Amino acid sequence: MSELLPTAPYRGTRDFLPADYSVREQVFHRLYEVIESFGYQRYDGPILESAEIYEAKSGRELADQQLYTLVDRGGRRLALRPEMTPSVARMIAGHAGELTFPARWYTNVNCHRYERPQRGRLREHWQINVDVFGTESAQAEIELVELVHAMFAALGASTDMWRLRINDRVLLESMLVDLVKVAPEQVKPVSKLIDRWEKLPADRLAEDAAGLGLSDGQFERLGSALRSGLALLDELPAEAKARSTLVPVLEQVPELVSYDPLIVRGLDYYTGTVFEIFDTDPANPRALFGGGRYADLAGLFTTQKIPGIGFACGDVTLPDFLATHGLLPAAAPEVDAAVLPLAGDLFGPARSVAAGLRAAGLRTTVSLEQRKLGKELTRVARAGALVAVLVGAEDWARGEVTVRDLGGRDQVTVPVAEAGPAAARIVRAGRGIGSAGRGIGSTAGAG
Amino acid sequence: MSELLPTAPYRGTRDFLPADYSVREQVFHRLYEVIESFGYQRYDGPILESAEIYEAKSGRELADQQLYTLVDRGGRRLALRPEMTPSVARMIAGHAGELTFPARWYTNVNCHRYERPQRGRLREHWQINVDVFGTESAQAEIELVELVHAMFAALGASTDMWRLRINDRVLLESMLVDLVKVAPEQVKPVSKLIDRWEKLPADRLAEDAAGLGLSDGQFERLGSALRSGLALLDELPAEAKARSTLVPVLEQVPELVSYDPLIVRGLDYYTGTVFEIFDTDPANPRALFGGGRYADLAGLFTTQKIPGIGFACGDVTLPDFLATHGLLPAAAPEVDAAVLPLAGDLFGPARSVAAGLRAAGLRTTVSLEQRKLGKELTRVARAGALVAVLVGAEDWARGEVTVRDLGGRDQVTVPVAEAGPAAARIVRAGRGIGSAGRGIGSTAGAG
Repeated sequence: MSELLPTAPYRGTRDFLPADYSVREQVFHRLYEVIESFGYQRYDGPILESAEIYEAKSGRELADQQLYTLVDRGGRRLALRPEMTPSVARMIAGHAGELTFPARWYTNVNCHRYERPQRGRLREHWQINVDVFGTESAQAEIELVELVHAMFAALGASTDMWRLRINDRVLLESMLVDLVKVAPEQVKPVSKLIDRWEKLPADRLAEDAAGLGLSDGQFERLGSALRSGLALLDELPAEAKARSTLVPVLEQVPELVSYDPLIVRGLDYYTGTVFEIFDTDPANPRALFGGGRYADLAGLFTTQKIPGIGFACGDVTLPDFLATHGLLPAAAPEVDAAVLPLAGDLFGPARSVAAGLRAAGLRTTVSLEQRKLGKELTRVARAGALVAVLVGAEDWARGEVTVRDLGGRDQVTVPVAEAGPAAARIVRAGRGIGSAGRGIGSTAGAG
Repeated sequence: MSELLPTAPYRGTRDFLPADYSVREQVFHRLYEVIESFGYQRYDGPILESAEIYEAKSGRELADQQLYTLVDRGGRRLALRPEMTPSVARMIAGHAGELTFPARWYTNVNCHRYERPQRGRLREHWQINVDVFGTESAQAEIELVELVHAMFAALGASTDMWRLRINDRVLLESMLVDLVKVAPEQVKPVSKLIDRWEKLPADRLAEDAAGLGLSDGQFERLGSALRSGLALLDELPAEAKARSTLVPVLEQVPELVSYDPLIVRGLDYYTGTVFEIFDTDPANPRALFGGGRYADLAGLFTTQKIPGIGFACGDVTLPDFLATHGLLPAAAPEVDAAVLPLAGDLFGPARSVAAGLRAAGLRTTVSLEQRKLGKELTRVARAGALVAVLVGAEDWARGEVTVRDLGGRDQVTVPVAEAGPAAARIVRAGRGIGSAGRGIGSTAGAG
């Protein structure tokens, strides 16, 4: 016999067994509901894309070190999408003529990055992307900030559990050029230094700043500007603030955001507002959501200038956040009812009884094999069934079946036509659901 | 300026814009509901798998010619899953100790095969997989056959639109060995010939059969056996029929299946029942569903013998079937309501009005920019809104807003608190929905 292959998934990817899947989808589903309530429409796209769409725009680190690439049998160089923005830019550019702007789109896709797996980082993760395309209005910023608050509220999180840190690259650049007097060509490297500001020790920061050509005085002004919070705005020229789409956010919904000059974000295509959401619990240092505004989303694909703003939220850091704050939902019950034929020639009758239970909205299994009754009852109860319907020869001959409450252990023999309603009453009571109807025990968010 | 990149997706893959996505998900969602009503639990797994799990079991053609492979930066040889069975086998093997068998699992995953794109075949497709693990009972066959019928019924298809053609490799082998007197080592190549029986002309079949060493008499017996339908069963030895899990299906639910000795299926791991579902309209010659039984699902991963039976149904052939029979659902309306601030300082009030509409279950957008009223009303109506709420300065000063029916063009000015219920009544009437409650216009199957 040949050697057995390992059963673990590929490093940095995950299997979602039904219990894991149920938890993940309950979280996603709450988010979908909120996002759709804001009028966002879901879309989807292929995992494989031409590699060059990432190399052009997504930033060096991602393209050089994190991209999974392959060459197909026709010689085309492809990549597994590491993020969704280039794909959606391609789609928007290809259909710009038919779309009504502003277009509110969202998706939930798996993305791949070759990273060292660690807390908050995997190689394959699912990522909800929410974008508004075709508007330069700061009202889009405000809408997304409001949506983020609604999403966290839907997850049961209070505002002390997380913080939306927001900046604007227009303000960032003005701070560097007008206050710190950084040369224009140094704006980008110094921005990248700011992006690592909280991760590096002070002496290393000073060293790197010097390496970039900043004088001691400039380094000091930079540090002081980064620490000054909202007061920084008073020092920036009116012209820069007039171009900023963040300033209206700070004026109109100051209670929803924390202005933070340290927020830069890595992706090259952001040109305006940038924001990240962090757990206030230091157990989760990685961003939960991140996003920003781009002046020209689809420049790789079209000469039409399509601005937009969007964010993504991943399924690696978010469950960590929910677990930390005790907000992770329990796995949903797996099945509602089980029908047990008590003799080998009663499988057919058992199937017809099950059809009646399903019509009553119960997720219902039928035993596939004859087992000892006690053993089979244990098995179906362990699978989550709250009620068992026993189909015995004598009962069946009289047009009856026995409906057994697996919690209370009561049982009642009823005409076949009443098995569905009787079982549904037990399930409803067991699940604490008052009303009738289909989908009593349906896995939340199945889909 | 550099050259623009193409906006088309990679050949053989698809973009799902919101209207396309809505149609796809409505179809999927109906299927999920039925599958869950039978007690199947959804799972998910990674797209990347070790390449060797396909090379071992999925059949030569798939592994040699159709697999998308890559080597990661750590030198691991990976593949994009071309099908789900090896992945789920890995998962079941890894968790066999914790699972309750029979385990009923389903998923919907995208799979990749390098094929020449054509009607019914793409390089990336979504595939619902439904399996029962851990049982040798023919009741599992019957359950899946019943489930298939329920799935087609949920799609609105009547039984004259499709046909479930079923065979059993046990019976196939017995036919070849006991009736046609094929040598044991020729069973597999002759089975592959049968798999192509309907695609090849008669002279080519005869030629290939001769090439495999079949005599003229054997070829004639084979042809006659393949045409004999149910009568073939009378000629097979009782011993083979006793081992077959298809025979009980033919005895107990003959009305649900068509026994067909021509059905073989390509994948190497099938060992018993095999079936395919075909459109009765010759416009769609490719199978809509396909599946079968395996005696030892997870032999690559564990010494524990885990039998099972399952099927897959893809999102390429199924929409073709639905379109052919006029059963494809329409794209769902994209949004229910729109709130329009009539002056630049009324965005905040408009957002609070929108919150009230969302609480009344309406998917609601707020205009992000000031446009001419007529133009904006046209735009939101085109986006699918049935009702617009106008927030004007004078109304707002009195605590009122104007609710406008975009279909009937009636409008009424109401206190702000009544805007949600008033708008919901209009949407309900417009969508033909009688009852109240959340999710009035929710995209079916969002998730």
